[in-house]
Amino acid sequence: MPDSRPEIVFATPQDAETLTQLQIDFGDEFDEPEPPFEVLLPRFRRFLADPAGFALLARRGGTAVGYAVVALRPAIYNEGGHVATLDELYVRPALRSQGIGAVLLAGAVEESRRRDAGEMHINVDSGDVDARRFYERHGFRNSLPGIDEPVLWYFAEWDSD
Amino acid sequence: MPDSRPEIVFATPQDAETLTQLQIDFGDEFDEPEPPFEVLLPRFRRFLADPAGFALLARRGGTAVGYAVVALRPAIYNEGGHVATLDELYVRPALRSQGIGAVLLAGAVEESRRRDAGEMHINVDSGDVDARRFYERHGFRNSLPGIDEPVLWYFAEWDSD
Repeated sequence: MPDSRPEIVFATPQDAETLTQLQIDFGDEFDEPEPPFEVLLPRFRRFLADPAGFALLARRGGTAVGYAVVALRPAIYNEGGHVATLDELYVRPALRSQGIGAVLLAGAVEESRRRDAGEMHINVDSGDVDARRFYERHGFRNSLPGIDEPVLWYFAEWDSD
Repeated sequence: MPDSRPEIVFATPQDAETLTQLQIDFGDEFDEPEPPFEVLLPRFRRFLADPAGFALLARRGGTAVGYAVVALRPAIYNEGGHVATLDELYVRPALRSQGIGAVLLAGAVEESRRRDAGEMHINVDSGDVDARRFYERHGFRNSLPGIDEPVLWYFAEWDSD
């Protein structure tokens, strides 16, 4: 069984095509369509050049099988002065349940800590039970200490895809 | 009735004390205690010096009666390449229902657009019905287009207050 530990690397601008395709496949799988490749590609290029964000690639046998995208913002919530948001985390379906997601998440947390983030935020569809279980297993919570109700994510967009 | 339009200004590092006190009062009102003044003050000072964030103060008669805190991060979700998070929005209880929150929110959106954010995110306690109604009235949604279930906010912290 090809269950060797994946190689985790920081994505560089040269990995923008790979990330773009993974992002499109991620969206297709969850019926949340992404913009076309040629629209998304320059966005990844720009993101990868921004010091306030980073992406990780999981490779096995030289092929990218998963990725994580993390962005940091300044915040007053901890001594480090930053919050990291895990904006994307995906492993190709055929390679799940082998711990690749956990290794990507651990790498995302490690690099976020190195960059002075004191916490990580993630938005998860309430119906995505697998993802919720995964994050809860890794110490993420959906309610603030002492408050027994979930926190909801709201958004408004004015520059829509 | 003292219902004049508030003055909205960008907070500067000189406003750190004012923001710190407002933040503490905000936390007290919602039983989510903040760190002590002397811990929070340098965090606000640092935040206000960071070009990736800004704060707005609402003043009436020279007194600060409300504030908003916004931080930006790079993202692949829109052509502007940034997401703005409204991390705090507060108006003193005695001055509510006079449109001050709406003016602060409008100012936060306007400045976020100017800084190339294509969308704004907010985390709201599910039990905070007033806040949810306020944001929904101003165009914020809790579910993605085409998906009829709320999105949840998860977090993990390793540098806790």
